[in-house]
Amino acid sequence: MGKKFLKVVQVGEVQDKLLDSFSIEPLFKSIPVNYSSGYFLAEDISSILDIPPFDKSLVDGFAVRSSDIKGANASNPAMLSVLKEVKIGTKPDVLLEKGTAVFVPTGGYLPEGADCVVMIEYTDSLNNSLFVMKDVAPNKNVLRTGVDVKYGELVLKKGERITPRSIGVLKSAGIKLIKVFKPVKIGLFSTGDELSDQYPLPIGKIYDYNRISLMSQMLKDGFTPTDYGILKDDPDILELNLKRALSENNVVVMSGGTSKGNFDFTVSVINKMGSPGVLIHGLNVSPGKPSVFGVVQGKLIAGLSGNPLAATLIYLIIVKDLIMKKLSLVSDRISVIGELTENVPSKKGRSEIVIGFLSVDSDRNIIQPIFSESAFVTTLQKGNGFFVIPQNKEGLYKGEKVKFEIW
Amino acid sequence: MGKKFLKVVQVGEVQDKLLDSFSIEPLFKSIPVNYSSGYFLAEDISSILDIPPFDKSLVDGFAVRSSDIKGANASNPAMLSVLKEVKIGTKPDVLLEKGTAVFVPTGGYLPEGADCVVMIEYTDSLNNSLFVMKDVAPNKNVLRTGVDVKYGELVLKKGERITPRSIGVLKSAGIKLIKVFKPVKIGLFSTGDELSDQYPLPIGKIYDYNRISLMSQMLKDGFTPTDYGILKDDPDILELNLKRALSENNVVVMSGGTSKGNFDFTVSVINKMGSPGVLIHGLNVSPGKPSVFGVVQGKLIAGLSGNPLAATLIYLIIVKDLIMKKLSLVSDRISVIGELTENVPSKKGRSEIVIGFLSVDSDRNIIQPIFSESAFVTTLQKGNGFFVIPQNKEGLYKGEKVKFEIW
Repeated sequence: MGKKFLKVVQVGEVQDKLLDSFSIEPLFKSIPVNYSSGYFLAEDISSILDIPPFDKSLVDGFAVRSSDIKGANASNPAMLSVLKEVKIGTKPDVLLEKGTAVFVPTGGYLPEGADCVVMIEYTDSLNNSLFVMKDVAPNKNVLRTGVDVKYGELVLKKGERITPRSIGVLKSAGIKLIKVFKPVKIGLFSTGDELSDQYPLPIGKIYDYNRISLMSQMLKDGFTPTDYGILKDDPDILELNLKRALSENNVVVMSGGTSKGNFDFTVSVINKMGSPGVLIHGLNVSPGKPSVFGVVQGKLIAGLSGNPLAATLIYLIIVKDLIMKKLSLVSDRISVIGELTENVPSKKGRSEIVIGFLSVDSDRNIIQPIFSESAFVTTLQKGNGFFVIPQNKEGLYKGEKVKFEIW
Repeated sequence: MGKKFLKVVQVGEVQDKLLDSFSIEPLFKSIPVNYSSGYFLAEDISSILDIPPFDKSLVDGFAVRSSDIKGANASNPAMLSVLKEVKIGTKPDVLLEKGTAVFVPTGGYLPEGADCVVMIEYTDSLNNSLFVMKDVAPNKNVLRTGVDVKYGELVLKKGERITPRSIGVLKSAGIKLIKVFKPVKIGLFSTGDELSDQYPLPIGKIYDYNRISLMSQMLKDGFTPTDYGILKDDPDILELNLKRALSENNVVVMSGGTSKGNFDFTVSVINKMGSPGVLIHGLNVSPGKPSVFGVVQGKLIAGLSGNPLAATLIYLIIVKDLIMKKLSLVSDRISVIGELTENVPSKKGRSEIVIGFLSVDSDRNIIQPIFSESAFVTTLQKGNGFFVIPQNKEGLYKGEKVKFEIW
């Protein structure tokens, strides 16, 4: 349990080092599709219907046999006899015989025997006779059964998050109940005697940015955070709360303990609690160097720096990604290439994460890096994402292209 | 009240035509910052604290007067006498006199009289004497009071949506309660005898994609949708439900009524219900041409096409934008310039909205247009946004740059 020698780890190596050493017991529930927005699917979903479920007219017009109106035009119309019309929402009980036509509204069910619909604008009626003034090809103005989705076709994959658009597809596919992942439970607390949630703010304290911000982000990410508050800088209190949070959650995220002494006792408490204990102790990245990752009772513990920039970014690029990867959840993060509006200095030998604001300037995507002297909370507020300067670069130049991650 | 002559309107003209003709009575509530994520601010927020609220050390080290260690280096260290250390989270009760040093942990409160912090690594102690082996400039390793945000400084503007990052800024600024907009209430229903929510699906019917998808999208957008279900194709039923939805909501969105007859009775019901009635009857855009916008009792009614692509897109680019503009809510939609991976045909004379998938291909942003024969629900699921082909263009070429809107 003593001190281990742990060297600073590259951000790109974190997954390799951690992914196999912790687990998240996946829990599932069955819910109605109607209430499933934002959940991650826990099963592949195949359609139990054809979409559309019947040959559907795309226009208001007459269902006909294309062979009956071959060559028809305004000066030489085809004459057909009109059967009763199709009521929308019902299956027509007629068989369309040669030489006949049936009115079908947009969305209506094409009668058997018809293979196309001629728009009402190209027809004329007299008593029970219909004059068709246009030649129409087979399948014209018809959406054939199953042409969007076939019965049995996979429509959504396990791990995908249900969006406002895919929820409609699930519904259209005839799915009533689906199996989803219960949201991953994350226990969250901060440590640090300088932190406070009290009003008014006691002298010598600062408000705890990280918990409120991370909780809000975790909810957006589809996880369920539980707040364990601010802990005093005390190894026994930390151990007690870590134990409780571990037993009640899938993952524990703590932030704070920014000072050297604090960082050290966080590490020793995690190591004391069980094997393998701390696995990563320091990342070769700025901000976020003083990050600790450990595994106790098979569960991931992430100790983030108290610096709001570091806590936010390391949560987003490491903790969130680890959880998603562990459960094979599909990420919906969008990356964009953009040009830097300014030089961005960086120290060679460690990677640097820079917050920026992506926008469009005529026909270019530009990224305004948001600089700050240190851990400014307003830096986070001013950005809409971030980019990484790799460790082998000594900064980036104005106009250089970077891959920007929208958060 | 009779039929009015209404010409097809350009998408870009809709706001001009509608924005002043309806109103949304803004309703507010006061909520704790802790629960404010996702709400729109109804007031400007100024910080009631300096951030940081005191001169804060950024490192573990000794607070000193920079003048005391001028020129110090390893071979010629400055000697200072050490006073008791600063406990984190408390205001030090010492005044740092000339020739003295006080240990301050990261995040600790700088004692009065000190103007910089020298990292512990550059010091050596012997009894009560401290040897400083580095010259440190004023303000070094110190975050000065208010350098991030000054007391009274505006931190968030009215109309901005509270994000995981800005909620932390509100907290840090000492704000406990904020005034937010109560979510705009949107009454939502579909019309069409072909639509169903029943399991199993009755023959001749299709499931209603639009309501479930729009509800989910509206919730994401910070609105509160109320579902009035599927209405039968009947003017009296439509009128009854429109009345009820209008009285219970700020805005009413209906979809369906795709057939010509249906579209016509929707228009006449809206016109019958009050003045000014229907203001826009048809948009010069595909998909979405059969869209109706009217105002009754001062409230906006949007009648969207039953086509899922049209309903989704016209909601996003018109209805949502109208609501946000009306209340001066700040949009967080992100646009990106990207290159088309294929030619996209389009009819000259009307604008066209095309769904696409934006991704990164080495150092370029590429947009894969998602084509479909007609209103395929899977088209919506495959995209991550859309772009508009202006009406004066006859399609776009592969490689051409377009402005893509991420949804």
